[in-house]
Amino acid sequence: MGKKVDQTTEYIHHVVNIKNEEIRVMIEDLTSGGKMLRPAFFLLFSELGPEKKPDSELIPLAASLELLHVATLIHDDVIDDSPLRRSKTTIHTRYGKRNAIYAGDYLFTVYFELASRYLPEQKYVVLNALSMKKILTGELDQMLINYNVNATTKMYLTEVSGKTAELFSLSTMMGAVVSGGDQKLVNLAKNIGHDIGMSFQIIDDVLDFGNSKDTGKPNFEDLRNGVYSLPYILGLQAKDAELIEILSRNDLTNEEITNAAQIVVDKGYLAKAKEIALTYSNHALRRINKLPNKESRTILTKVVKKLMNRVD
Amino acid sequence: MGKKVDQTTEYIHHVVNIKNEEIRVMIEDLTSGGKMLRPAFFLLFSELGPEKKPDSELIPLAASLELLHVATLIHDDVIDDSPLRRSKTTIHTRYGKRNAIYAGDYLFTVYFELASRYLPEQKYVVLNALSMKKILTGELDQMLINYNVNATTKMYLTEVSGKTAELFSLSTMMGAVVSGGDQKLVNLAKNIGHDIGMSFQIIDDVLDFGNSKDTGKPNFEDLRNGVYSLPYILGLQAKDAELIEILSRNDLTNEEITNAAQIVVDKGYLAKAKEIALTYSNHALRRINKLPNKESRTILTKVVKKLMNRVD
Repeated sequence: MGKKVDQTTEYIHHVVNIKNEEIRVMIEDLTSGGKMLRPAFFLLFSELGPEKKPDSELIPLAASLELLHVATLIHDDVIDDSPLRRSKTTIHTRYGKRNAIYAGDYLFTVYFELASRYLPEQKYVVLNALSMKKILTGELDQMLINYNVNATTKMYLTEVSGKTAELFSLSTMMGAVVSGGDQKLVNLAKNIGHDIGMSFQIIDDVLDFGNSKDTGKPNFEDLRNGVYSLPYILGLQAKDAELIEILSRNDLTNEEITNAAQIVVDKGYLAKAKEIALTYSNHALRRINKLPNKESRTILTKVVKKLMNRVD
Repeated sequence: MGKKVDQTTEYIHHVVNIKNEEIRVMIEDLTSGGKMLRPAFFLLFSELGPEKKPDSELIPLAASLELLHVATLIHDDVIDDSPLRRSKTTIHTRYGKRNAIYAGDYLFTVYFELASRYLPEQKYVVLNALSMKKILTGELDQMLINYNVNATTKMYLTEVSGKTAELFSLSTMMGAVVSGGDQKLVNLAKNIGHDIGMSFQIIDDVLDFGNSKDTGKPNFEDLRNGVYSLPYILGLQAKDAELIEILSRNDLTNEEITNAAQIVVDKGYLAKAKEIALTYSNHALRRINKLPNKESRTILTKVVKKLMNRVD
């Protein structure tokens, strides 16, 4: 599995052959040393059905999923317009907005090319397009939540279903599809991907509050950027007057941000978010147990548990 | 033909059903009252082959081409970052950068969806993806020409082949494809589209110098934005010392811009550009004469002559 993921990274660097040196280097940077979760899930699920596709078809499709992920990441970053994310300089700050917009567009076209060239049937290309649309719509939905003290858990879950879970879901589902899986397997794969994606995003939200293995101080980047992640939204949903009062102010100071985060921790909203994340992970684990192939099942269980452990 | 083009505009407004009100209005604005040249060429060529596809398939494909055009237009505009273009406020100035990036991305996904859903075979979806890539690459090539006094005609023609001509070429070619045209017809369509696109862009370049029917003063927006269009490049290619000297300066004043443009007019570079545009149009007209269907031939000849007349 690790070998195929490395081949996917190599393939990405090979396929992004673009004259513009700056943009080429930028894309190579952004596709090196990443976790490559989406290609990995795709490759794992591609071993579940009765058919065995050659690597010459699997690797490009695995690459396409990572390219779509990186493309949305790059554009998000320009749109958010924050100079820092998780204490690192953001993409558009490092490479310039102009390059970032082009690089994202270019990766969308490479994704489109690989998906249309290597998917086994045209109807799956349509499915990919619809997924891409859901991802975009999820990102638009995020604009309705940012800086909105009336945001609800329902709005949040809809947003994350698109923004994050959809691409995980597409990855696992396309894996099952290329392996010739039947409708039952394809649906199972789709649901597992969705649950993993939901859990993954919420765990990410929780990690913004710092974790026990982390020596540095948490920065509460989400709140700083006006992103209302699940722990805050649970407080807003509970009509927490103290929290609403702080979040209703403009241009929060560092102290106000720390106070808001402290409320979220003290009143158990953070713990509740963690619980929701683990519920999704456990759903995923139960469904993974129904998968046919024993080896993939073992690896998948390990991967999901490792993702869960990040907040333990 | 006019009726089908109107139906295409209606279809676009129907298909862009997005919750975000601002972005929906923005896209509706940008797809109303335009010339709809690409859908029109697609529809004309869709009448040339032996098969007659229903409007329920033709209109979405015609729409997809306009959506791809508008998507690139929106992103270009953010990238160029100029507040004015052809004396009008630019898209990102009117609607905000954030909305402009999302709107472009969203239109890319709708384009991808329509192309993958309605094209008759998967290999044509791949062709569309490759075209989209060429368009993007053409735009990147433009960055190599802007503010570059060593830019050559060859660089310019490569850039415009991608940036502008590729989408015209795709439109005419896909028209021939959906009508079940043979390889000869498809190639002919492709070449006609390419020549029309080249001519169209160069005529646009020439019009930036103002034309006789125009009462307002020309603004030389291209040069003002660092865009070296063909008339300037012909001067640079001819090693015109006077022109090179001005263009080598930074932050040109209005007077310097007018002087540079005057040189381009006086030394015949503008006339030479016009001549090149007309050569492409005449190529197109000669090839149009080889088309099978008499009615489409007559309309196409009229349209191309009308485009040529803009600089006469």
